[in-house]
Amino acid sequence: MRVCVVGLGLIGGSLAKALSKTKKYLVDGYDISKEVCEKALECGCIKSIADFKGGKKYDIVFIALSPALTIEFIKNNADFLKGAIVSDVCGVKAPIISALKDFCKKNGIFFIGGHPMAGRELNGFDNSTPDLFINRYYIFTKDENTLDEKLYVLKELVTDIGCFDVTVTTPEKHDQMIAFTSQLPHILAGTYMKSPSSEFHLGFSAGSYHDVSRVASIDENLWTQLFLSNKERLLEELDIFIENINNYRAALNDNDADRLKELIKTGRILKERDLEQNGKEKPHNFG
Amino acid sequence: MRVCVVGLGLIGGSLAKALSKTKKYLVDGYDISKEVCEKALECGCIKSIADFKGGKKYDIVFIALSPALTIEFIKNNADFLKGAIVSDVCGVKAPIISALKDFCKKNGIFFIGGHPMAGRELNGFDNSTPDLFINRYYIFTKDENTLDEKLYVLKELVTDIGCFDVTVTTPEKHDQMIAFTSQLPHILAGTYMKSPSSEFHLGFSAGSYHDVSRVASIDENLWTQLFLSNKERLLEELDIFIENINNYRAALNDNDADRLKELIKTGRILKERDLEQNGKEKPHNFG
Repeated sequence: MRVCVVGLGLIGGSLAKALSKTKKYLVDGYDISKEVCEKALECGCIKSIADFKGGKKYDIVFIALSPALTIEFIKNNADFLKGAIVSDVCGVKAPIISALKDFCKKNGIFFIGGHPMAGRELNGFDNSTPDLFINRYYIFTKDENTLDEKLYVLKELVTDIGCFDVTVTTPEKHDQMIAFTSQLPHILAGTYMKSPSSEFHLGFSAGSYHDVSRVASIDENLWTQLFLSNKERLLEELDIFIENINNYRAALNDNDADRLKELIKTGRILKERDLEQNGKEKPHNFG
Repeated sequence: MRVCVVGLGLIGGSLAKALSKTKKYLVDGYDISKEVCEKALECGCIKSIADFKGGKKYDIVFIALSPALTIEFIKNNADFLKGAIVSDVCGVKAPIISALKDFCKKNGIFFIGGHPMAGRELNGFDNSTPDLFINRYYIFTKDENTLDEKLYVLKELVTDIGCFDVTVTTPEKHDQMIAFTSQLPHILAGTYMKSPSSEFHLGFSAGSYHDVSRVASIDENLWTQLFLSNKERLLEELDIFIENINNYRAALNDNDADRLKELIKTGRILKERDLEQNGKEKPHNFG
């Protein structure tokens, strides 16, 4: 299997490293930075720098770029991508699929939206690692153009690089869930850091501080795109969150011990039920 | 050194186990549950069940009870505590110190407020562990009655059980910082779990979900006491948080990319500065 990874940042670099490590895939890659390309060649995670001129050269192409650049790259390189299975790694799926679905069908590109539930609080090729996907979920989206045999190839590939399981869902369901599981926590982290107390936490902090604030350090250009392109879903989650935190505030302000107790208890029961149903294991990597 | 631990839950049990493991301290203990007392005797972390009748029997007494029971225990057992160094483990300090300061001085009890920055998302003696304090901070509070030589004994003791460092501060400063580093994250976790999406996160979640929700499972009776007894400080932090999260919401709702970018960037810079100044290490235990 010949695989090409376009964009060798944290995710693309990790994909190239993980795929080449399996020895089952011949991996080429490309990055806009010459320095990154040279590092990737040197460490052996790509065999050569991909050249997008001419027709199909790869069975599978991963586009590991931001949403806007992902769409642009595919639209500008139809000949190169024709006949290949092409997958992106963007954190939103409905806007990507709706921008590319018809174009890809018309040009014979087998496009399947993808999103690895993997990441780190550090960016770039230098922080990429072949272990990034171990024990993680990988989400693929399915629409009316998706061919099961192409999806099967990608499912096998992500299993080869260590993923624990694959979730197949619609682009809309993906975006709804990701607003809750990923986008909202990133906003909570950034919001939390804005307290004037954050500067003085040392000596007064432990796991709670570290866990809530961990993902505050994110690229503002990428995440502004991600938030705005999932606006309606994220607003829904924000409104639910703001309503609920205001309930705690009101109970505290009113010295209403019974109401406060009930609010804490509801959170406890929901979390305990989650742990019972879904296991107590924390994923090994962050993201 | 003869040490007594009153209350053998997660914190008290861990203190007894850690202290007895050092071989430097003779540890007795007491718990309202006979079953817990027997387990503690059996595992050897206490030599005998403490008896509070008569005068001083211990150099140091840790009261590992809830705020209300801590105050009650000390007021009901002045003869037993007279001449000893007595420390609590409550998550708030100003209300404890103000309730006990004069009483302890009058009765010759050397009371020093304490709060280990250690914990787990599981409660009770069965989850206690001698390793709970390893690499953690331990906070002691100082007021006009605090004797330095008594504080020194406690500092040495918590270093013996593995603490990384000791923070000495005023009760008020403790409560202000803890509203931010501990109480607010516990409210965020419980608030987060209340989204209807939380039930369906499996297959769509990774570290962000787990980290934000981890401490949602807390005892509602204890934490209602802790929140209400630190009401003003916690309200301040809640108001700052709610104002800031509403800023993200407004920027998103207005499609204001520049403002959203600025908000994300500010969070990133604050977190990066924190990591630079205070190290990238996450404590080994949670709390």
